[in-house]
Amino acid sequence: MTITPPALSVFEALESEVRSYCRGWPAVFDRAQGSHMYDEDGHTYLDFFAGAGSLNYGHNNPVLKRALIDYIERDGVTHGLDMSTTAKRAFLESFQNNILRPRDLPYKVMFPGPTGTNAVEAALKLARKVKGREAIVSFTNAFHGMSLGSLAVTGNAFKRAGAGIPLVHGTPMPFDNYFDGTVPDFLWFERLLEDQGSGLNQPAAVIVETVQGEGGINVARSEWLRALAELCERQDMLLIVDDIQMGCGRTGAFFSFEEAGITPDIVTVSKSISGYGLPMSLTLFKPELDIWEPGEHNGTFRGNNPAFVTAAATLDTYWSDGQMEKQTLARGEQVERALRAICEEQPGTQFRGRGLVWGLEFDDKPRASAVCRRAFELGLLLETSGPESEVVKLLPALTISPDDLDEGLRTLARAVRETA
Amino acid sequence: MTITPPALSVFEALESEVRSYCRGWPAVFDRAQGSHMYDEDGHTYLDFFAGAGSLNYGHNNPVLKRALIDYIERDGVTHGLDMSTTAKRAFLESFQNNILRPRDLPYKVMFPGPTGTNAVEAALKLARKVKGREAIVSFTNAFHGMSLGSLAVTGNAFKRAGAGIPLVHGTPMPFDNYFDGTVPDFLWFERLLEDQGSGLNQPAAVIVETVQGEGGINVARSEWLRALAELCERQDMLLIVDDIQMGCGRTGAFFSFEEAGITPDIVTVSKSISGYGLPMSLTLFKPELDIWEPGEHNGTFRGNNPAFVTAAATLDTYWSDGQMEKQTLARGEQVERALRAICEEQPGTQFRGRGLVWGLEFDDKPRASAVCRRAFELGLLLETSGPESEVVKLLPALTISPDDLDEGLRTLARAVRETA
Amino acid sequence: MTITPPALSVFEALESEVRSYCRGWPAVFDRAQGSHMYDEDGHTYLDFFAGAGSLNYGHNNPVLKRALIDYIERDGVTHGLDMSTTAKRAFLESFQNNILRPRDLPYKVMFPGPTGTNAVEAALKLARKVKGREAIVSFTNAFHGMSLGSLAVTGNAFKRAGAGIPLVHGTPMPFDNYFDGTVPDFLWFERLLEDQGSGLNQPAAVIVETVQGEGGINVARSEWLRALAELCERQDMLLIVDDIQMGCGRTGAFFSFEEAGITPDIVTVSKSISGYGLPMSLTLFKPELDIWEPGEHNGTFRGNNPAFVTAAATLDTYWSDGQMEKQTLARGEQVERALRAICEEQPGTQFRGRGLVWGLEFDDKPRASAVCRRAFELGLLLETSGPESEVVKLLPALTISPDDLDEGLRTLARAVRETA
Amino acid sequence: MTITPPALSVFEALESEVRSYCRGWPAVFDRAQGSHMYDEDGHTYLDFFAGAGSLNYGHNNPVLKRALIDYIERDGVTHGLDMSTTAKRAFLESFQNNILRPRDLPYKVMFPGPTGTNAVEAALKLARKVKGREAIVSFTNAFHGMSLGSLAVTGNAFKRAGAGIPLVHGTPMPFDNYFDGTVPDFLWFERLLEDQGSGLNQPAAVIVETVQGEGGINVARSEWLRALAELCERQDMLLIVDDIQMGCGRTGAFFSFEEAGITPDIVTVSKSISGYGLPMSLTLFKPELDIWEPGEHNGTFRGNNPAFVTAAATLDTYWSDGQMEKQTLARGEQVERALRAICEEQPGTQFRGRGLVWGLEFDDKPRASAVCRRAFELGLLLETSGPESEVVKLLPALTISPDDLDEGLRTLARAVRETA
Repeated sequence: MTITPPALSVFEALESEVRSYCRGWPAVFDRAQGSHMYDEDGHTYLDFFAGAGSLNYGHNNPVLKRALIDYIERDGVTHGLDMSTTAKRAFLESFQNNILRPRDLPYKVMFPGPTGTNAVEAALKLARKVKGREAIVSFTNAFHGMSLGSLAVTGNAFKRAGAGIPLVHGTPMPFDNYFDGTVPDFLWFERLLEDQGSGLNQPAAVIVETVQGEGGINVARSEWLRALAELCERQDMLLIVDDIQMGCGRTGAFFSFEEAGITPDIVTVSKSISGYGLPMSLTLFKPELDIWEPGEHNGTFRGNNPAFVTAAATLDTYWSDGQMEKQTLARGEQVERALRAICEEQPGTQFRGRGLVWGLEFDDKPRASAVCRRAFELGLLLETSGPESEVVKLLPALTISPDDLDEGLRTLARAVRETA
Repeated sequence: MTITPPALSVFEALESEVRSYCRGWPAVFDRAQGSHMYDEDGHTYLDFFAGAGSLNYGHNNPVLKRALIDYIERDGVTHGLDMSTTAKRAFLESFQNNILRPRDLPYKVMFPGPTGTNAVEAALKLARKVKGREAIVSFTNAFHGMSLGSLAVTGNAFKRAGAGIPLVHGTPMPFDNYFDGTVPDFLWFERLLEDQGSGLNQPAAVIVETVQGEGGINVARSEWLRALAELCERQDMLLIVDDIQMGCGRTGAFFSFEEAGITPDIVTVSKSISGYGLPMSLTLFKPELDIWEPGEHNGTFRGNNPAFVTAAATLDTYWSDGQMEKQTLARGEQVERALRAICEEQPGTQFRGRGLVWGLEFDDKPRASAVCRRAFELGLLLETSGPESEVVKLLPALTISPDDLDEGLRTLARAVRETA
Repeated sequence: MTITPPALSVFEALESEVRSYCRGWPAVFDRAQGSHMYDEDGHTYLDFFAGAGSLNYGHNNPVLKRALIDYIERDGVTHGLDMSTTAKRAFLESFQNNILRPRDLPYKVMFPGPTGTNAVEAALKLARKVKGREAIVSFTNAFHGMSLGSLAVTGNAFKRAGAGIPLVHGTPMPFDNYFDGTVPDFLWFERLLEDQGSGLNQPAAVIVETVQGEGGINVARSEWLRALAELCERQDMLLIVDDIQMGCGRTGAFFSFEEAGITPDIVTVSKSISGYGLPMSLTLFKPELDIWEPGEHNGTFRGNNPAFVTAAATLDTYWSDGQMEKQTLARGEQVERALRAICEEQPGTQFRGRGLVWGLEFDDKPRASAVCRRAFELGLLLETSGPESEVVKLLPALTISPDDLDEGLRTLARAVRETA
Repeated sequence: MTITPPALSVFEALESEVRSYCRGWPAVFDRAQGSHMYDEDGHTYLDFFAGAGSLNYGHNNPVLKRALIDYIERDGVTHGLDMSTTAKRAFLESFQNNILRPRDLPYKVMFPGPTGTNAVEAALKLARKVKGREAIVSFTNAFHGMSLGSLAVTGNAFKRAGAGIPLVHGTPMPFDNYFDGTVPDFLWFERLLEDQGSGLNQPAAVIVETVQGEGGINVARSEWLRALAELCERQDMLLIVDDIQMGCGRTGAFFSFEEAGITPDIVTVSKSISGYGLPMSLTLFKPELDIWEPGEHNGTFRGNNPAFVTAAATLDTYWSDGQMEKQTLARGEQVERALRAICEEQPGTQFRGRGLVWGLEFDDKPRASAVCRRAFELGLLLETSGPESEVVKLLPALTISPDDLDEGLRTLARAVRETA
């Protein structure tokens, strides 16, 4: 396939220099269905990116599309702030019945605004309010968002520099396996907490991703997560799991922390919660933490009702039984086999992942970007992650067919070979 | 009309105590069309609230609805981060042709994330980055959002307390008419800037709303805005107009600052930009400020393409000529007449406003809430604003018919009388 | 008198560029007695500077000198941290008997470290600890010290820039007469406090100088100070009077706030408290505020016992009756007459002051420095103050003889004339 | 010896609850000579505390006393801000000739105010100004002072809590041997610096004590200090050695870092620099860092000339050859032998130290305080240090006689035995 760079004039003339994905993928996309995107020149792309984890059920999933169009057609409430609506009730009931009750999770549900960073900001505010302390511990290579509260607990130096002010009240700790197992888990963190002379401000909370997506597909072990949960309990810190990218089934179970058997105090959910790529977020927390005053946190687009409609549809369709989890794990094994083969063939590569999130790391760091560029030429959408963009990130839709998955993995293998 | 409080069980059981609007309006809304909302028990409400300014073209506006359904039906890209899409191009072209060019505005367009607070965070980051200073000046009773950066420049003490950390780097200055004209404009602000011993950290930027919506419908005079723009120029501070609630025609012209004849350095736009209540935001800035590095600010839902589709449709439908502005000003006069009559009849009341945003203030502050409660019983949706909720805020759709507007104003007058 | 610039080699070679007074007064001083300093070349200087207010009783006052040498001779404890010593007891008893009891002041005494900024840091810490809030209100052109806590409430932009970090948690308010009486006192401050939407973080305390020394000899009126004290009481803020430069009799009474009839919650004292130019400071506060834990604030040189000895000697010698206060006010009238004559003769000059602190302001700002340079050539030590060094500051020793005072005032008049 | 608690009435009635040493040592001290203090009831105490390191040459050292009295007698300038004086010149020349030149140290000398925390504040300001960054790295159990800048890089949680505001811009790293050698030095610190995703704000400087006095007599190895200096160089961070307690010969050489062969960028000196317990401090830095503007940092008591006089006398008397260093090391061996014997006899004890600073740690932490209490009853002044006051700290004067040292060590051994 040969792709002619399209005339991007209005984008170049009018859109800010901050734009990014459009530079790596110089196409003008027009339509999308399932695991495929189509540009205006008629090219087809297999999508191993899935809206950075926002499209776990594929593009324009027909089940959700039907529900969405029906809702719009019948003039269902579109914009509702935090008014009660029939669409919100349906979502809440479905979330309670399909997700919370079967897992014995006692969470209250907050609609903090429709983006991930809204959910993180609300989580941090609540943790600080509950504990009466301002310090938050985050982890190396964490990514939590771009507004000032979330950015202060995000690791990436380039993104942090964008703040234009010193980012404070956050202290990074080593994520699981940061020293390749040579240092006992939480040695530094626990010692700082126990030493009255350590200089660490006593944290209100710890915020963690179970698998760091932007940070390079770093997978925390279940035993590490359990030890972290115990440390939080012992040291009177709230545990916040940011499940924005890894929740909604990405790692198999609905929540990524289920496998570890822990119950975080606060959970943030976004990206694939609406299922259709529509902006929606949740901040979940244990009921005893629900000390918010009415309206103490607000926001115009908290009640994005079309998103509630597609969200309820995803839960009813995919999460009323354990089928989706099983399928994701099976697809994950398919990916793992392919990556193992690539790494055996190509020296200087490692892979890691869980469920349907996988990373292929290159010792020769720039090669990861080269692989993505070549993949794009071959019709496969893939992005990098990691502090130096040294990891190719595989994030196919959970609903991808085994054949499409196989095709993409073969294209990836070819791109790796051709950049050797 | 008698309204039976509906069974709100799942909302009460599951949704966080932070929920707010649903408390004042104890109904479960189901459908909406134009200026009317319908609850599940069959009651009809006339909407003088318009999604807090997000529904300037009414609920589920048929023109936009058609465009939206067509786009979804044909599997247009829904979620696109900052990839180039045909929907984004159509929006950019329409925005350029209908809005920027006719007004000679040179702005670059940034999609900072789909909520107002995303747009404000991006504006503040950019201002600090450009000027290399961290301080921002805001105004008494300003409202800019709930994430930490925006909250630090928001006036409301109750919202600020939610942060759980000291909010710094912002200094409030008196908004126009804060002292009822007894003190020269900018006396304090300018003196602080000129006095090398004043203790004010040199600001990177000033952020202002031309009409403070949440702050109590405080209308800045054009001459005050012009003097502020000149002060910013003279003192090397960027001027940010937060046009999230007052833009998109709310005050008549598309941007609320047009009347004053100023060109802010940075403008934030959200709420009604999509026209359909879908989350979408813009941060606009002069091209010489566009020093962002690619990806320095990002976010999952920046590319909410269905919103681009409805946004382009609003611009093409309503903003290709000056008709909408004229109509809004005419409707505004209708409101003004009605409010004048109320205030003449009812001692202890004042009114103020511009275009189709108006406030009715009560010396007996709690009465404003009583009026809204009574209006709700009478089938009219109205909320309060102001630091002590002492102002009834009128924010009807710009597309409201004269008859509906008249009906609502009569209901308001009745509610005022019945709470005297 | 002709002064040959001495060879300053070791100062220039070794001492940091931060040095300052030695630049304006290019002499190497060797001895000093009363109101005179002597350089190594045999020149004599009349001192209208008095160690920036640290030498209210003149250089090497013989009464204090005797007590000091006796103490050193008999091997009295020199360095005592906060151990109990006979010298500290003697000081505390003298302070209680001569100062606190006669004025009915209930203060507890803290030795916070021997410099003014130590005293301010301790005052701010205590205020924040007592009130549980971090915000402090200071005034335009305030000067409170160079360590980060004190610097954050200091007005001078040049000093503030030295911090290298954004200075936060402080908000400036207009000092008395900042707008030449055209704006009611505390209009802005009180409105911000009362308006729940103002954006001002609720302050723990207000810190104020009754006469701003570094800020330009700005004299607060008694009624302004009383209104401030009442505002603090009404709004639950602690009132801190920084009496470091204006206390110890500089304005007449021992404390500069006595004239206004107010009792601040916290008072800082330093500079002339030891009377001999030895480092010593006090932080005084109402007993109900004494919630310090033992050792919660400490410091190596809190127990500078030789300073306690000279301090007690000043109190016993000068403050057992009202004589010193009367004499200071009389000397002040002598200064006032002379300044009035100068201002009548020289257009573009104004004067102001209280007790023995006076300022002579020049509309032609650089002229103030020219006057000080010329005065130095004529054998008179004088420095400038004010945000643009536009004020000549007169701070003679309280013990200066009428003849010496007259001589200095005549020299000043000559220097003013010769720089016209 | 039996000690009757004296009547402490004025101390209890008037002095703030913050007072501390006077509680552990309930005596009223009157005189002091060499290594002995005398209370007003005629009791004698052997001093193993030395003004927390401020009295390295003993109390009221006769050589310094003579110089001091001569200076006062002849009316030498006492208080001089940063004017040039003959006393300052003599000190600068002596410091250059005895200290800087023989060690090939190129430092510029700043007089930042007379206390340790003034010196640290100036060092941090300068480092931030030079590097244009605000972040500082400090170490676990560091102690640098009580003003806000210094407190932010101090480890002790109790002291930090006194600030009343969140302390920011500082990040603690593990001091040498924090993990008993099980973790490679700087593993964590270096990884954070190298990982662009770590979340650590790029530091302007690192501040370190070579031996942590307040932190529990933690002795950094020379190779650790060298590796730290190399890390700073490699990563463009300034190295600040806080030599306030460990300088002036406490560890043998004049500067404690000489043994390691490093040349810090900035050095803070205080405590024993005057030699007589008089407040005095220095901030030393490499000449290329001397970017201060004149007067950018100031302070009233920077020119404590009597302290310059005694300081010059200590340098001329004790530091013109290597004798003092040899003697200190010899005395240190005497202490080490005694501590070894104690630890061999008493299980659950460890000792460590360098030169004449030593610590005796008790596994049974409260026993350290019991030992100090018992020692006091036996006429020996000793204090504890460490985050839980678990270490008895030995800090005798460097000029102590072998016999006095032996007596004190035997008293210590007895106190240890009697608290077993």
